[in-house]
Amino acid sequence: MPERSRAHEWTPITLLPLNGGPDPARLADSFLTPTSRFFVRNHGTIPIVDPDAFRLEISGMVRQPLRLSLDELTQRFPTVRRPALIQCAGFRRSELARVRAIPGELPWDEEPVSTAEWGGIRLADLLAAAMPDDAARHVAFEGCDDVEREGRRFGFGGSVTMEEAARHDVILAFEMNGEPLTAEHGWPLRAVVPNVIGARSVKWLTRIELRPTASENYFQRRAYKLVDRAGATTDAWEAAPAISTLPINTLICRPRGGERLCPGPIRLAGYAWSGEPGGVAAVEFSVRGGAGWRPARLSEINLPGCWREWTAEVDLASGRHDLLVRALLPDGSAQPADPAPLWNARGYMNNSWARAVLEVRAD
Amino acid sequence: MPERSRAHEWTPITLLPLNGGPDPARLADSFLTPTSRFFVRNHGTIPIVDPDAFRLEISGMVRQPLRLSLDELTQRFPTVRRPALIQCAGFRRSELARVRAIPGELPWDEEPVSTAEWGGIRLADLLAAAMPDDAARHVAFEGCDDVEREGRRFGFGGSVTMEEAARHDVILAFEMNGEPLTAEHGWPLRAVVPNVIGARSVKWLTRIELRPTASENYFQRRAYKLVDRAGATTDAWEAAPAISTLPINTLICRPRGGERLCPGPIRLAGYAWSGEPGGVAAVEFSVRGGAGWRPARLSEINLPGCWREWTAEVDLASGRHDLLVRALLPDGSAQPADPAPLWNARGYMNNSWARAVLEVRAD
Repeated sequence: MPERSRAHEWTPITLLPLNGGPDPARLADSFLTPTSRFFVRNHGTIPIVDPDAFRLEISGMVRQPLRLSLDELTQRFPTVRRPALIQCAGFRRSELARVRAIPGELPWDEEPVSTAEWGGIRLADLLAAAMPDDAARHVAFEGCDDVEREGRRFGFGGSVTMEEAARHDVILAFEMNGEPLTAEHGWPLRAVVPNVIGARSVKWLTRIELRPTASENYFQRRAYKLVDRAGATTDAWEAAPAISTLPINTLICRPRGGERLCPGPIRLAGYAWSGEPGGVAAVEFSVRGGAGWRPARLSEINLPGCWREWTAEVDLASGRHDLLVRALLPDGSAQPADPAPLWNARGYMNNSWARAVLEVRAD
Repeated sequence: MPERSRAHEWTPITLLPLNGGPDPARLADSFLTPTSRFFVRNHGTIPIVDPDAFRLEISGMVRQPLRLSLDELTQRFPTVRRPALIQCAGFRRSELARVRAIPGELPWDEEPVSTAEWGGIRLADLLAAAMPDDAARHVAFEGCDDVEREGRRFGFGGSVTMEEAARHDVILAFEMNGEPLTAEHGWPLRAVVPNVIGARSVKWLTRIELRPTASENYFQRRAYKLVDRAGATTDAWEAAPAISTLPINTLICRPRGGERLCPGPIRLAGYAWSGEPGGVAAVEFSVRGGAGWRPARLSEINLPGCWREWTAEVDLASGRHDLLVRALLPDGSAQPADPAPLWNARGYMNNSWARAVLEVRAD
């Protein structure tokens, strides 16, 4: 099972670490995002892993610590496959950065969200084999990449609660879209935690520790938190609660803003998703900058932990049209209109209305 | 969990029993087929099931016979979700019927193939709870629909071998594409057996019997067999081996034959699949009636038990072009060229090259 390279169908934002994502229009081509189009969000090196030497360690508050080779993992536990969306907490950070600067963070637009079919073993099965102590409350993941922050080098990490870890849809994946994981997507093993920020889907996973408290890793303790002022102290970062569940959000795949369109019927298409239990109940759009909201058509395909496709047909005359799209939860609450009140120092969790300016001209 | 009705996006072939399928062009819109587009192949009534009274019985060669309500099924066993293709053995029967008549069978073209995400419990988990005798060799399914054949009324049925039944991808589904099954797709419970003919994915499943021999059901013993002469005796039908594994096959979704196309670059798209291990290794196309074969591009998304998308771009001048498409197995063996040698009395298992006539005109 060697590491494989593959042509990318996206534009890098940075090369070291490797970060990038596809043109969102291409995400409308298929419900499952091909691996070559799936966004990549890394914080350090892409490690070169020797699959024969690789071991996954489960330690901490367990009665049966484990140290398992890839063969042991795949032979001892049943393989499951399921589609799941992964979204970076920095999705649409660029809109927040236009409210007020966010230095030192990637200027993501709408690239870092994708949905793939993951194959692997259930975290719940592995934890059952390790026999957690009753007092264990958190499951910490750590990768074997090489990240530097605040003068220290360490592997990227983060944690989920025992309740989140017990869910059947949390898997330790070695396959993506029916093929072995590629190096940049975490080969040979990554956590896939649906419904929460992508930072918990730790790549190149080598250590799992059961703990009474959340992970001590920088990316759990001092990043991926909502802090509302630039230059906040380390204490302020430590004190803030960690973000986790993905809020309801929307992507306009087609048409993209800036395209020249001909007058007449135009098909709108995109996705909406939410990490909240009831998922997406409705999607609405306006082609008049927030006036005259109309319902989009939701796909029947409504899988847990995935996005849901929406489409609409609209007749547009020549001119400029401000397209807005918002999704609603089952309780009727919708995405917020404006990114400004969502601003935070690292630019996470922007879920304001999706917007695109459509230029319609006959010539 | 009431039965739900839903608008269909396909054309019925017969209304009682209900049979029909979508325009194959629409299958290219998404990897997973929306429930409203998924073909329906029934042999009798669509039963009205009382979910509170419903029980699934597991009997025969088991040490622990079971009789389980829907709640017991879903609470006692973990829920899994996986995509799987279902293809009717009569797919492309119409081409065989043009070789020689096939009276009394549905004139299927390319409608009866679709891929959905199924949610349910693993058959393997249920069988483990029933503790099969070592001598059990077959798992027979029976539905509670009402079929009439040869003057008798009974529920549709069929069987798989113990080896097939032990596979992790065989599930008893109560969900389709994230929603409860609809009545016409087998609510409240259907078997979903990937890689074999759709006839084994028994709907309205109420009985599972472990047996030393295959099911005695008409649809296992006297249909879904390859018999090469019309009017064969019952003995000839009984003696023939049952068909099971889906052969390698191809669907051209776009463009469809008969469409008027403009000269210039044209995008071809479709799917290929095979129930054989190894799946689809390559897809080739010819726009010159079998001369100048060229490779199509295969999607990276290559999930077990599912179809694999292929695409190609070709530049076509005005005129008539005979498009042929064939898929290859990993051992290099390809679909057969011609349907004629595949003719059989009920018109099953046509997997000859896919064909479409493209009319290209500038006006």
